[in-house]
Amino acid sequence: MTVAERTDEIIETDVVVVGGGPVGLFQVFELGLLEMKCHVVDSLRNVGGQCMELYPQKPIYDIPAVPVYSSAELTENLLKQNHPFKPVYHLGEVVTKVEKQEDGSFHVETDLGTRFHCKAVIIASGMGSFDARPMRVPGIEKFENKQLFYRVRDPEFFAGKNIVICGGGDSALDWTLNLVGKAESVILIHRRDGFRAAPARVAEMKQLCEDWQMQFVVGSVTGFEEKDGVMTEVRVTGNDGIVRRIPLDCLLVFFGLQPKVGPIAEWGLELDRKQIVVDTARFETNIPGIFAVGDCNTYPGKKKLILSGFHECALAAFAASQYVFPDKKVFLQYTTTSPKLHKALGVPDPAHHKGEEGSEE
Amino acid sequence: MTVAERTDEIIETDVVVVGGGPVGLFQVFELGLLEMKCHVVDSLRNVGGQCMELYPQKPIYDIPAVPVYSSAELTENLLKQNHPFKPVYHLGEVVTKVEKQEDGSFHVETDLGTRFHCKAVIIASGMGSFDARPMRVPGIEKFENKQLFYRVRDPEFFAGKNIVICGGGDSALDWTLNLVGKAESVILIHRRDGFRAAPARVAEMKQLCEDWQMQFVVGSVTGFEEKDGVMTEVRVTGNDGIVRRIPLDCLLVFFGLQPKVGPIAEWGLELDRKQIVVDTARFETNIPGIFAVGDCNTYPGKKKLILSGFHECALAAFAASQYVFPDKKVFLQYTTTSPKLHKALGVPDPAHHKGEEGSEE
Repeated sequence: MTVAERTDEIIETDVVVVGGGPVGLFQVFELGLLEMKCHVVDSLRNVGGQCMELYPQKPIYDIPAVPVYSSAELTENLLKQNHPFKPVYHLGEVVTKVEKQEDGSFHVETDLGTRFHCKAVIIASGMGSFDARPMRVPGIEKFENKQLFYRVRDPEFFAGKNIVICGGGDSALDWTLNLVGKAESVILIHRRDGFRAAPARVAEMKQLCEDWQMQFVVGSVTGFEEKDGVMTEVRVTGNDGIVRRIPLDCLLVFFGLQPKVGPIAEWGLELDRKQIVVDTARFETNIPGIFAVGDCNTYPGKKKLILSGFHECALAAFAASQYVFPDKKVFLQYTTTSPKLHKALGVPDPAHHKGEEGSEE
Repeated sequence: MTVAERTDEIIETDVVVVGGGPVGLFQVFELGLLEMKCHVVDSLRNVGGQCMELYPQKPIYDIPAVPVYSSAELTENLLKQNHPFKPVYHLGEVVTKVEKQEDGSFHVETDLGTRFHCKAVIIASGMGSFDARPMRVPGIEKFENKQLFYRVRDPEFFAGKNIVICGGGDSALDWTLNLVGKAESVILIHRRDGFRAAPARVAEMKQLCEDWQMQFVVGSVTGFEEKDGVMTEVRVTGNDGIVRRIPLDCLLVFFGLQPKVGPIAEWGLELDRKQIVVDTARFETNIPGIFAVGDCNTYPGKKKLILSGFHECALAAFAASQYVFPDKKVFLQYTTTSPKLHKALGVPDPAHHKGEEGSEE
């Protein structure tokens, strides 16, 4: 996998693919079969999209002809499949600007200043990026990434500290169990005694409470105290209306994720309830040369299924080829029988060993 | 895999799937996810369709997220994937009749007299069935399956016999090489000295000729002699115009395959150049309740790709569910997170261990 070095030069390529989830990765393959080069930009630091972020090991059962895949296996195989076409990935970057030039080509820019010049843009941005759902306590946001965290990048950072964790889902429970013993103290706060997390983990947490290794408090954080710019304690209002004061070093909040409306909204694309409107023959948007595939698009009958995204990639690639190769007629060839595709895929051609169809000549 | 026993009873089912190729097999899975039962009818004796018939071991490179599959692996995994839904297969049967009943349901019949009553019909018949391209010598057809063969079912049948094989493709060469040594004599006839078959096999055949183990004749069969209803010899006209007489017991002809127009043409479906016209939201034909998916259909942008067929199956299943469950609202659920789908798939449900999306409640 080639991850790009930062450059100030304008990168010339055939197609920029916005999004490196499963559908974006397969788009690279379909473009490659038709001899188009591309660069992939994703706001996440890894390819594989939200399913890799959210549940890399959870099984998926409806990838056609694959009875079961984890997201990790899905991603790995899509990378292996598109590898012959040598895509370049720009990770941790957000495409902020897509401007059509007078000659019909596009100028594309990211928030880190990476610039592309390309013939077509294919948006495969999925449900868009997600933000952690924030804690709604006025003024508390100023502690973000200092004492208030919505994700754990390095568990060691919390070693020896007094930790308060808020939430009742898998992340809240997983990090509670992970940090007990490592942190100086751990207090879990959830606004009710029921959890969305796996029952086994909840039981483990309750056992730790009985063993005095941590505490669980029913309630919500409703305020905080600070001294010299440092948060010293949070106020927790219980269901009984009583307010407790809990001293702490760090506050970890896991309230789940919420979709984030990205800069795509400003590119002049026709949207329908935040989805990009496309046709079903080319999966092209209202702007010729900009396509949208996968969960970010909408059309009559649309289902947000990965397998639909795969189909959309194939048809979008054929349509995009008309912008990349305006003078060439692109024919459908089969990977099973086409020596040209075998060459592109880097597989040895079975020396004129053609199929049985057709005449004997 | 459940292959049906012949029965005179009318089989009641939700959906009849016409065609057991890769797309028909995946259709079963998509129907199953939405709790619809089905029966699959295919004219071939095995599932997997033409790709299994024509090139079971040739690699396919464009199944999404599978860098390489043979048709055999593709078929095997599609069977494994649809196995939880217990489809019943009717093989070696051709659907001859599809009649809409007054109540909107369908009466379906095969050439062997199997009868179904169902709520929807999904045609996944691919390019249709193929016939062997026949030898065009007047009167010779009366020896078919007695002395004239277009396919080999049991090579032992030809042991000790004097065989003439016609053709220049893979099948002709493969069977020539297979039968030399087993048959009493083998003569290969092809109308030119160039072959479509793999060069290595052609070289092997030429070596066998040099070793006097078989003969190769350039020419075409233009007539035959018979005695008491038995074909005794064929007349072969060479490129030099000279006619040779070659005595034989059996004639094997491998002139490749040609598409066969099946009974589908008579069901009242709107066709466009032999393809069934469908919409792209439901993949439904002009007859409500009859759908068409995969290589047999056409719509704007259509490409004959297996991955497009998979997408079509998913949308057709949702649309078909409106006929099977007219009073139920069918929602999209994900195999990764839905306990209901886990139950249907027979996988242990990870005990309320839901995803991280959404709120903490």
